[in-house]
Amino acid sequence: MTLNVGIVGTGIFASDAHLPAIQAIDKLKPAAAYNRTKSKADVFAEKAGIPSGNVYESVDALLENPEIDFVDALLPVQSNVDIIRNAIKHEKPIVIEKPIAANMKQAREIVELASSTDLPIGILEQWAFFSSINKLREILPQIGNIVSFTYKATGPWNANNKYLATAWRQNPEHIGGFLSDGGVHQLALLTEILGHVEYVSGHTRQVRKESGTDDILFSSLKLTSGVIGTFTYGSAFGATDKSTSLVIYADNGSVTYDFSPSLPKPTITYQTGANAQEASEKTVIEIDEVNAIQEEFKNFASAVEAKDKSLVVVPPAKAFHHLAIIAAALESSKNNGSSVKVEVV
Amino acid sequence: MTLNVGIVGTGIFASDAHLPAIQAIDKLKPAAAYNRTKSKADVFAEKAGIPSGNVYESVDALLENPEIDFVDALLPVQSNVDIIRNAIKHEKPIVIEKPIAANMKQAREIVELASSTDLPIGILEQWAFFSSINKLREILPQIGNIVSFTYKATGPWNANNKYLATAWRQNPEHIGGFLSDGGVHQLALLTEILGHVEYVSGHTRQVRKESGTDDILFSSLKLTSGVIGTFTYGSAFGATDKSTSLVIYADNGSVTYDFSPSLPKPTITYQTGANAQEASEKTVIEIDEVNAIQEEFKNFASAVEAKDKSLVVVPPAKAFHHLAIIAAALESSKNNGSSVKVEVV
Repeated sequence: MTLNVGIVGTGIFASDAHLPAIQAIDKLKPAAAYNRTKSKADVFAEKAGIPSGNVYESVDALLENPEIDFVDALLPVQSNVDIIRNAIKHEKPIVIEKPIAANMKQAREIVELASSTDLPIGILEQWAFFSSINKLREILPQIGNIVSFTYKATGPWNANNKYLATAWRQNPEHIGGFLSDGGVHQLALLTEILGHVEYVSGHTRQVRKESGTDDILFSSLKLTSGVIGTFTYGSAFGATDKSTSLVIYADNGSVTYDFSPSLPKPTITYQTGANAQEASEKTVIEIDEVNAIQEEFKNFASAVEAKDKSLVVVPPAKAFHHLAIIAAALESSKNNGSSVKVEVV
Repeated sequence: MTLNVGIVGTGIFASDAHLPAIQAIDKLKPAAAYNRTKSKADVFAEKAGIPSGNVYESVDALLENPEIDFVDALLPVQSNVDIIRNAIKHEKPIVIEKPIAANMKQAREIVELASSTDLPIGILEQWAFFSSINKLREILPQIGNIVSFTYKATGPWNANNKYLATAWRQNPEHIGGFLSDGGVHQLALLTEILGHVEYVSGHTRQVRKESGTDDILFSSLKLTSGVIGTFTYGSAFGATDKSTSLVIYADNGSVTYDFSPSLPKPTITYQTGANAQEASEKTVIEIDEVNAIQEEFKNFASAVEAKDKSLVVVPPAKAFHHLAIIAAALESSKNNGSSVKVEVV
């Protein structure tokens, strides 16, 4: 069985990332396209092998095509709630790009819309599909009771960032600007490994005019499990190494997951033992990471095929949590780092 | 001119660290000793070449010896305020070991006592004497406007820690236990480099029963300058690398100061440039660090010789700030990471 995918919003990421992923999956076929500027949809359709008759003048027209099995929407984030409502109206399963929504009100609407239907609704949060997550879950029981962590993703400002020219990013209507745009990835990864965040205290600042809003975040977190840690995120600095790592501290050892781009492969390093005197040698594991974008499409395709929304790995309720952490951090920063309880759905 | 030093409290650190430092400085001479258990003072005096007639039965007797030029006190932290009051009464300059006091009330009393006299009163906070601080101050203007930092000092629990047996550490009357005991060092270094801390939000936890109280801290800070960052401290984990580093991010570059014990020497690495495209090569500087304990004694000796308390590099008001940050972190943690303004003197 082949699933026909209707792509709504044929911008950079649709062309550079979604299309190759969809084309690499046997059972998926790019079958229809819509873009506000139709000429861009035409170019995309040609690249994708979509017949010109399936390039639509309106989203509704695409949604009314009975041959389309699900919608892949890559829209300015503030449009996510409307396209989901519209897809449900037309009985189409839909995946949207992260972040889930422009603000928590819209995010809540999306969660409620998803609850109101049996259609699979998914958020394309590919970081939840990294195979490193499962590897870490395997290792963690060996290091005892987890007590704390540091998560740090920092990098220099990229003056050639192709996404900088995106109008909705330059003048963000969505909370957090780049902090939510990229931060939800980091938080998806963190929470898949360590569970939900309960309290956030932190500070944000704007380093780059081009970010349109605050673009760095330094925070401390308390998880629902009682684990404490720091979460640091920003790619708006002057020259510095691009570095991304999670260190997990426990009472019988520690694990470092480093996926900085300077490494040949993402690397997990761990040691066990209750103290300095009983420390084991380090075990180092290089990860052959999956193509996470393909994995998320495969996952959503399975849910659509099975008509079973419970199979969706990142449903709106999960992506809601990622954005809620950013929202809490922004609120905290407005109050000099107050403790903000993360909104629950 | 030789200055005669009266040592009050002849425990491990007096014998292992202060005595060699005092003996290495030409103008200082260990000249009198007092310990609650006199036999320990006798052993110390013999090692130090102090005549047995100058081993006293009481602190007052030592303070009444007119030949003693200043007092070096290494007492359980809750005794600092009393020994300072007593030294002032006897017109003796005095240095005490960090942390300044067992709590903020006592710390404030010490600051007030120091203000009430022209005698030099100092806190032995040797980390404020690291030559790395001056090197960093030289480099920082090259990286532009500082926006943020991460300070992280983490290590495994040391089951053979010789200080663990110290009674006042096992049953801490002082706030923060090991968090203040070691944390004030880290905060002395941080604040010498980046200035005062205004707000603290964070979480603490107790990992080791032997700590007597919370022993790890994960926090976010906002400095008076507006710079934001995270401060992570703890040596109570299971097996992990002992690692201590400060990364400073600015809009035209970044600096990493790594003084992890695994390195041959403390190392400062920096790069400049406004973004990834304009990043300079890295400059790496290995620091031949000074003997900071000798430096702090030399500094205090100069102040005593000159009868000028303004020469003291770490007067009580400065050490007050270091402890106030820990106090704020502890209060914050009690309230799920609330924003706590650091008490000012």
